[in-house]
Amino acid sequence: MSTSNYSPGLEGVVSNTTSISYLDVELGQILLRGYDLIELSQKLTYPEVAYTIIYGALPKDHETATFVRQLSEQYQIPNDIYDFFNIMPKNTNLMDAMRSGISMLAGYEDPKFLTDNSHDANLAKGLRLLAKTPSIAANAYRSLTGQPFVSPDPQLGFAENLLFMIQGSSPDPLSLESFDRVLTCYSEHEMANSTFAARVISSTFSDIYGGMVGAIASLKGPLHGGANEAAMYMLLDILEKGGEQNTEPYLSEKMAQGIRIMGFGHRVYMRKYDPRAYYLREYIPRLVDKKPEGPELLAIYRRVEEVMLRDRGLYPNADYPIALILYLLDVPIPLYTPIFFAARVAGLIAHVMEQHENNRLFRPRVNYEGERGLTVR
Amino acid sequence: MSTSNYSPGLEGVVSNTTSISYLDVELGQILLRGYDLIELSQKLTYPEVAYTIIYGALPKDHETATFVRQLSEQYQIPNDIYDFFNIMPKNTNLMDAMRSGISMLAGYEDPKFLTDNSHDANLAKGLRLLAKTPSIAANAYRSLTGQPFVSPDPQLGFAENLLFMIQGSSPDPLSLESFDRVLTCYSEHEMANSTFAARVISSTFSDIYGGMVGAIASLKGPLHGGANEAAMYMLLDILEKGGEQNTEPYLSEKMAQGIRIMGFGHRVYMRKYDPRAYYLREYIPRLVDKKPEGPELLAIYRRVEEVMLRDRGLYPNADYPIALILYLLDVPIPLYTPIFFAARVAGLIAHVMEQHENNRLFRPRVNYEGERGLTVR
Repeated sequence: MSTSNYSPGLEGVVSNTTSISYLDVELGQILLRGYDLIELSQKLTYPEVAYTIIYGALPKDHETATFVRQLSEQYQIPNDIYDFFNIMPKNTNLMDAMRSGISMLAGYEDPKFLTDNSHDANLAKGLRLLAKTPSIAANAYRSLTGQPFVSPDPQLGFAENLLFMIQGSSPDPLSLESFDRVLTCYSEHEMANSTFAARVISSTFSDIYGGMVGAIASLKGPLHGGANEAAMYMLLDILEKGGEQNTEPYLSEKMAQGIRIMGFGHRVYMRKYDPRAYYLREYIPRLVDKKPEGPELLAIYRRVEEVMLRDRGLYPNADYPIALILYLLDVPIPLYTPIFFAARVAGLIAHVMEQHENNRLFRPRVNYEGERGLTVR
Repeated sequence: MSTSNYSPGLEGVVSNTTSISYLDVELGQILLRGYDLIELSQKLTYPEVAYTIIYGALPKDHETATFVRQLSEQYQIPNDIYDFFNIMPKNTNLMDAMRSGISMLAGYEDPKFLTDNSHDANLAKGLRLLAKTPSIAANAYRSLTGQPFVSPDPQLGFAENLLFMIQGSSPDPLSLESFDRVLTCYSEHEMANSTFAARVISSTFSDIYGGMVGAIASLKGPLHGGANEAAMYMLLDILEKGGEQNTEPYLSEKMAQGIRIMGFGHRVYMRKYDPRAYYLREYIPRLVDKKPEGPELLAIYRRVEEVMLRDRGLYPNADYPIALILYLLDVPIPLYTPIFFAARVAGLIAHVMEQHENNRLFRPRVNYEGERGLTVR
């Protein structure tokens, strides 16, 4: 193979034509179906944004009501999945538990419908996945931490139900608003690794469940969805080891050891602020008094941001403010990446559908640098 | 984004540097670690080839013995996985059952070891996956078809144990030889879609289980691993609908309907014979009397090959002879793709290790053709 077209990690390479979303770095905009993600987040709820991503246009009033009802009617998961959570080993990583739960869910589809990759079949299965993922995430967590299962409440909206299942009570309005906006900011983000993984898998005409399972596996990685958890563990580590005053020495030491500081930088945004991070950070001061350690964590948060910009020229990405927002909302840290996935299901549905409806199998080549011409004896 | 570098399905694009394998189309060779795959298959058993792929060099005698023992000691799977097979819905697709089983298996690793992507940790986890996949495939199938579970037999070699778990008895020497060579031919094949999916996922530093789960999801698709099952269903369909004499009208009708004939053509080999298909087809006449319908199926097999070459210029790929070989060996058709995966685990281990040890996150861009500049109200 010629290696003239080799770009490690496919950096700068176009993998797909899409009409779903685009990171317009020059304008500093994340376009979703032609709209600015931040404007969508300010003016619409997460389910309305999810609708827009999946259907390609804003919902009309009655469409929103129908969509919300279609989701809430399907929140519940089969009893066997609760049984599965009971038998899985208690050491299971939460993302892995969710991966197994979503994988198992495929078995409840009619076999012919499962492998039907038409627009309508993908839409029906996709909405089912969107509706059920919160129940899988929250109950897998409950099982692994020895808490009783909780049933979803079909009276509650998407964001409220998810927070309710995590915390066992309904959130106050500010908490709900913040959480809903976190979900919207995570809903879709062009050709992120997990989205790319889902499209690669779907291009064999494997069904939508396969794409979702692959996306969970991808999102678990610390260079992707796992970054929000890693960022929060770091903020808490600094809090414990001297707080804001010790932020700078702490970071210097980590960077000297070559340890990557998570929540900063993004291949696409490079030297610019991730618009989601810029927008969401405004919620932190409003939520800061929800926890006694909130103000000190905010001081550390700001200090880390300052040092990373000054010393590395790196801006925060969305994972950085989201980590602290979820912490202030009392969401357990192992749920951060599962929540990321629950929100991203909307974008993944749209991408799997787009892939299936205009497919070309992904099958690249390699730059072979191994041996040649060996013989066995 | 500039679209000058856009190649749908990444056709002709180099995604990775590798020293594992290379399809040398000009020489008509599949290179594995510098050796010709066909020569490896003729002179070595599948575990020896798997060793070569994973370790990068042929095993010495004592290394083969150690490797075979390391595998057989780990054939057995945890009891909970049998329990899981009992509770999963009976409609579950076998590839999906295997995907859930492998996903669940991650929970038995020590949590720190699970996310340890070092060479040694990946090797240990990889060998565990290689050893246990046959038990998962065979017992998931048994559960879904209402047969009693069967324990692996550590006295048996890899290929023999897998056939034993499927059939409940040990194979005769010719059957074992054919099956072992099928496994070797499936062991590794450069940047196939499932391998690419595993590398994309692993590039987030997600662990080896995630890469394997993504590969299963990919392999299920009819444009990839699912092709061997589809090819066999077609041969049986022709047998039922008039046999060899009706082959030509049958194919004409399918092609007129735009239905893809599976088991033919391959993006990389294009207008050449897949060396694996050329090599393996020699086993079919030797096995043909194992089934009463064998001779007629062989006649149909040859006729389809002839017509596809004459009318479409397409040669068989490996899935085509393998489908008929597995049928003559009395392997149930739903197990064809799981067997493909069980063999490919060897290649996937090597690729995940190579990705983790020289990583660059996969994050391509898109050619955006959607709307721009819309506002909410």
